[in-house]
Amino acid sequence: MLAGYLNTRCGDFLRSLRLYGESGSDTAAAEEAASALRCSARRIAGSLHTFRVLLDPVWADQLRTELGWLSGTLAQEYACTARLHRLVSALARLSGAGAVPAARNGDGPAAETSGALTVGASRAGALLERQLTLARTRSHSAALQALGSSRFHAVADAVAVLASEVPLAPVAGAPATEILAAPQSAAERRLLDAVSTLPLARAAHPYNAEALVHGLSTPSDGEAQDAPWHQVRLLLRLHRYAQEIRHAGGAPDPVLADAGGALDRHRDAAEAAAAAANAARTPRIAPATAYALGVLHADQRHEVEAARYDFQQIWGRRAVTAP
Amino acid sequence: MLAGYLNTRCGDFLRSLRLYGESGSDTAAAEEAASALRCSARRIAGSLHTFRVLLDPVWADQLRTELGWLSGTLAQEYACTARLHRLVSALARLSGAGAVPAARNGDGPAAETSGALTVGASRAGALLERQLTLARTRSHSAALQALGSSRFHAVADAVAVLASEVPLAPVAGAPATEILAAPQSAAERRLLDAVSTLPLARAAHPYNAEALVHGLSTPSDGEAQDAPWHQVRLLLRLHRYAQEIRHAGGAPDPVLADAGGALDRHRDAAEAAAAAANAARTPRIAPATAYALGVLHADQRHEVEAARYDFQQIWGRRAVTAP
Repeated sequence: MLAGYLNTRCGDFLRSLRLYGESGSDTAAAEEAASALRCSARRIAGSLHTFRVLLDPVWADQLRTELGWLSGTLAQEYACTARLHRLVSALARLSGAGAVPAARNGDGPAAETSGALTVGASRAGALLERQLTLARTRSHSAALQALGSSRFHAVADAVAVLASEVPLAPVAGAPATEILAAPQSAAERRLLDAVSTLPLARAAHPYNAEALVHGLSTPSDGEAQDAPWHQVRLLLRLHRYAQEIRHAGGAPDPVLADAGGALDRHRDAAEAAAAAANAARTPRIAPATAYALGVLHADQRHEVEAARYDFQQIWGRRAVTAP
Repeated sequence: MLAGYLNTRCGDFLRSLRLYGESGSDTAAAEEAASALRCSARRIAGSLHTFRVLLDPVWADQLRTELGWLSGTLAQEYACTARLHRLVSALARLSGAGAVPAARNGDGPAAETSGALTVGASRAGALLERQLTLARTRSHSAALQALGSSRFHAVADAVAVLASEVPLAPVAGAPATEILAAPQSAAERRLLDAVSTLPLARAAHPYNAEALVHGLSTPSDGEAQDAPWHQVRLLLRLHRYAQEIRHAGGAPDPVLADAGGALDRHRDAAEAAAAAANAARTPRIAPATAYALGVLHADQRHEVEAARYDFQQIWGRRAVTAP
């Protein structure tokens, strides 16, 4: 069962890699292929982590580290694009101008709506666009460099081997579902333990103003508050991947998928808020620009709080329906 | 019944006026007396408005206008104090420094917590303190000038007459409760009509981000969004005062009192947000100050949204318990 799952995911990985290589200058195709590549890399790495005891552990740990490096490197570029779009959309919304269409490479998203923006909002948009476009360009170069590196070729080779042959550890001849159950339960327990440390009672009160408590203090205070939620996001993903093996072909658990979506929004909003705060530390910006970035930062921190509220609501549904 | 109610309120008014005159340099006593004076002036004016048809209408309209001028003038000074305290407390909260003790004349509230504030937050606090202290001083002078004016003496004389003699219009000899019922129902109907125009369905969704939709556009757009809520606040107060006559001595309706409290917070937060936005338009401020004012503005607009959510929740309780 585990070997079959890993074979399939490795097949996905290799197919996405080929599509990525063939995409050339087609940005949309490259983005789609890179997204599928990251998706399969995360699933392979997640399985190697959860089912480590059923595999050759040294080999599993090493490949997992390499896959984490790869998907992290590939994710940066698209994270910059998504963050810029989120922030420019928020600036448009805060100016009463409605949403903007999805930003693509080359389009200036700030320019599209500048007519409706105040001076501060459009300057803030232009500043964020400069900074995040620069970061995206750097990430793109880093991704290209990674995909051409011998380190990457070693990962691709390892995945190609794994597509046909999984180095399983010798286990007693129990049924597959029983052998898989222990690591799966452990993954679920780690998730439940992490969720139990979250301040869910507070998150259940709308407008608790918790996410903005450190809105004007040092960035590290704000990050400390977010860390347990980011941790739950990662553990929830591992738990979902571990379940996919058991329920291969079955429908994914909608509650877990929704909860994961809320935590993705939490992470995206937290990073967007940090990008706005960071842009405000640019030397010699106009007060109107700084003011707009302050409003934007607070807005995104409220999205963080809203995502926690959503997660709490969704998790409550799970508690009711769970066996 | 109406005459008795007006007599009592006018007695309260005259007693508060005497206490205010005797308070001298005792700020707390002056504040308390002025608050009681405004409270009775609002109730007299409200009754003159609701029960206009049972009184000499020309006389009622004129006295009501004068009482509105008086309570409006007296309210300004304390509104400035409360607004400054709200904003300085919010800055402390946003810096993770906790709440600050209530600000009083002469104490520098920003100074108390500056150790814990970032440069931007403490500069923003100092700027708001300068601007709102100046506004408070002006309001204090205006209040003193009003209390010494012949216009005020005419109001006090009219209230003194009303304390013993109410110019009722001739009405058919029906029971008092029946005669009072029609204007009371009209006041309630005006309230219900105004509430029905509020976007309550939207307010029921936490984190709808509605209050900040115009966070970066012109101030008048934001004010247009708040106006219907402010109108409901006034009509709710008139309805509560009209009910006081019927249930004289009885306990006030807790739902109406809570709903009024939510709308008071709505108004206070909206005005505090406007004060922060206004301070950000001060020429030659540092970007860090402007950024902190932006965060503060957004924070107060979220308090506006939270107050709408609270009102919607409270109003829902009323719909369940109302006959």
